Amino acid sequence: MISTMEQEKQMKQQSSSSNAINLNKPLRCIVKLGGAAITCKNVIEKIHDENLEIASSQLRQAMNSTSSSDKVISMDWSKRSGVSEVSPSLDDFADSSLLDSSNFIVVHGAGSFGHFQASKSGVHKGGLHLPLVMAGFVATRISVTSLNLEIVRALAREGIPSIGMSPFACGWSTCERNIASADIFQVAKAINSGFVPVLHGDAVLDNLQGCTILSGDVIIRHLAELLKPEYVVFLTDVLGVYDRPPTDSNAVLLREIAVDEDGSWSIVKPEIGNMNKKVEITVAAHDTTGGMLTKISEAAMIAKLGIDVYIVKAATDHSLRALKGEVKDNIPDDWLGTVIRSAR
Amino acid sequence: MISTMEQEKQMKQQSSSSNAINLNKPLRCIVKLGGAAITCKNVIEKIHDENLEIASSQLRQAMNSTSSSDKVISMDWSKRSGVSEVSPSLDDFADSSLLDSSNFIVVHGAGSFGHFQASKSGVHKGGLHLPLVMAGFVATRISVTSLNLEIVRALAREGIPSIGMSPFACGWSTCERNIASADIFQVAKAINSGFVPVLHGDAVLDNLQGCTILSGDVIIRHLAELLKPEYVVFLTDVLGVYDRPPTDSNAVLLREIAVDEDGSWSIVKPEIGNMNKKVEITVAAHDTTGGMLTKISEAAMIAKLGIDVYIVKAATDHSLRALKGEVKDNIPDDWLGTVIRSAR
Repeated sequence: MISTMEQEKQMKQQSSSSNAINLNKPLRCIVKLGGAAITCKNVIEKIHDENLEIASSQLRQAMNSTSSSDKVISMDWSKRSGVSEVSPSLDDFADSSLLDSSNFIVVHGAGSFGHFQASKSGVHKGGLHLPLVMAGFVATRISVTSLNLEIVRALAREGIPSIGMSPFACGWSTCERNIASADIFQVAKAINSGFVPVLHGDAVLDNLQGCTILSGDVIIRHLAELLKPEYVVFLTDVLGVYDRPPTDSNAVLLREIAVDEDGSWSIVKPEIGNMNKKVEITVAAHDTTGGMLTKISEAAMIAKLGIDVYIVKAATDHSLRALKGEVKDNIPDDWLGTVIRSAR
Repeated sequence: MISTMEQEKQMKQQSSSSNAINLNKPLRCIVKLGGAAITCKNVIEKIHDENLEIASSQLRQAMNSTSSSDKVISMDWSKRSGVSEVSPSLDDFADSSLLDSSNFIVVHGAGSFGHFQASKSGVHKGGLHLPLVMAGFVATRISVTSLNLEIVRALAREGIPSIGMSPFACGWSTCERNIASADIFQVAKAINSGFVPVLHGDAVLDNLQGCTILSGDVIIRHLAELLKPEYVVFLTDVLGVYDRPPTDSNAVLLREIAVDEDGSWSIVKPEIGNMNKKVEITVAAHDTTGGMLTKISEAAMIAKLGIDVYIVKAATDHSLRALKGEVKDNIPDDWLGTVIRSAR
């Protein structure tokens, strides 16, 4: 067990050192588009169009905060069912300030895409030699890449130069479900060329168990470790992290969580003397990658690096402010969401 | 100029030597699904469903020629518009011989996907710093990856464990439009895990001009050089290569072309004494990657390696026989198509 972890650590170091990862300008933000926020959780393979559209628009506003131009020029020139054809005018592209955006990476979850296929076949448990698992692997990738394509398109319609980069195709693989290799170099190259890479939770090969599901949250932690963004935003379907399931009417929104060196966390705000500091979490039954539990522990590991993490409800004024970085130095009183940061 | 080519050569050697490319079993065939065969050339972003379905079915038959099972179990479990939902039965996957297929790689062209976006913006000419080119790059990738997804799905519906591997995401890039880097290791890993990688012509980064279009034909030549398939099949929309445009009523189908060491070709069959041996070719105006000219010269370079190339009309009995390898040792009289092989 330890030797495997050591091995993984070595591979990680290798992958980060052999390709010097130099970004032309610092990475401002990694954004997680939570599966629960951008898909309709209980309807198989249905995108929450309204949330996705607002989230894409907010991303554009956050990226171009310095730009004076309000003009939105779509980069999706493909046909869409039910929409008249997009034929861009060459004149629209005369204004070169359109490209003056800061560096972002988008990672999205699967929501109601992929989960049915993955859980029916047990892709996360491995066993690629079994026909059912092999078929489930193929079916899962079809489902999650079709979501990826739609998200890339939604971002491109907002004029964001989005580029789909599927983790399996990029050479991401795991060893006992931890990341064993990942072509960060290619992600960095895309960013340096001015693109916004769009990654996603994916079915990947696993050195030990054959295959598994690599969650978007684990991808974000790995990217954050190597590319050091200023901050990370998780867009989700609730206001933030609560002290108990948010469906409970007594649930209290945790405004600020501090993460210690050893990875343990404590609640800074709200200050409640006798409050049970252990955060209760709910894990949805269909969520093969761990749900809120994975999210918080991955967020804590990012915060330990000194990178602020904001967990906030998608398509709200709060998410726009988080994406713009307005929460960075002090948390405004009228801002609703959870900040997870290092206790140092 | 020479130094750049040397540099490229070095990079190629590096990429092929640093990751030892070992396939568990030999690669049987690389198949090109020609854009003209699987899309409706003159209708933007329209797939030729019938051809794609037949081509996928023929691929399954060719891959499983040793298998006794005729059962086709779909690996596409996603929703499709106009089709009732696919819900696989777990019992279907009890027969493990389903996976006993030989190694194939599929590469497809763009046809009526991507060309409009690429030519409108001039992606093939480079200049990623220009807003129009940047937008065209994003738009082109959206279009070609949406075609890739549909082809992966069509293959998966035939029970082929197809995996989309987009060249841009896989780290393929060019230098003066020649391949500068390519993650063949990842393709080999997918094959060794039992998958059929599905690559495609794509918009990629170019070290010198910023970006360009990497054609599926160039990808095939590169894969053939490094992975040494038994044979390569180009599925297209005409019977093969003609001595003049096939629309000309006097056009003669060339049955066999021999390629010399120096890359020049001569017509072996039909034996026509005074026939003009220079093959006339037509290049469609919208084809940013060179059409038949690129195809023949790439095919000639593959044949020079000692690998037979068959150019054949998709969705015919001739294509099925070519895919199965029946043309390999001698060309049957009733087989229509063009064989390009080394003169040695």
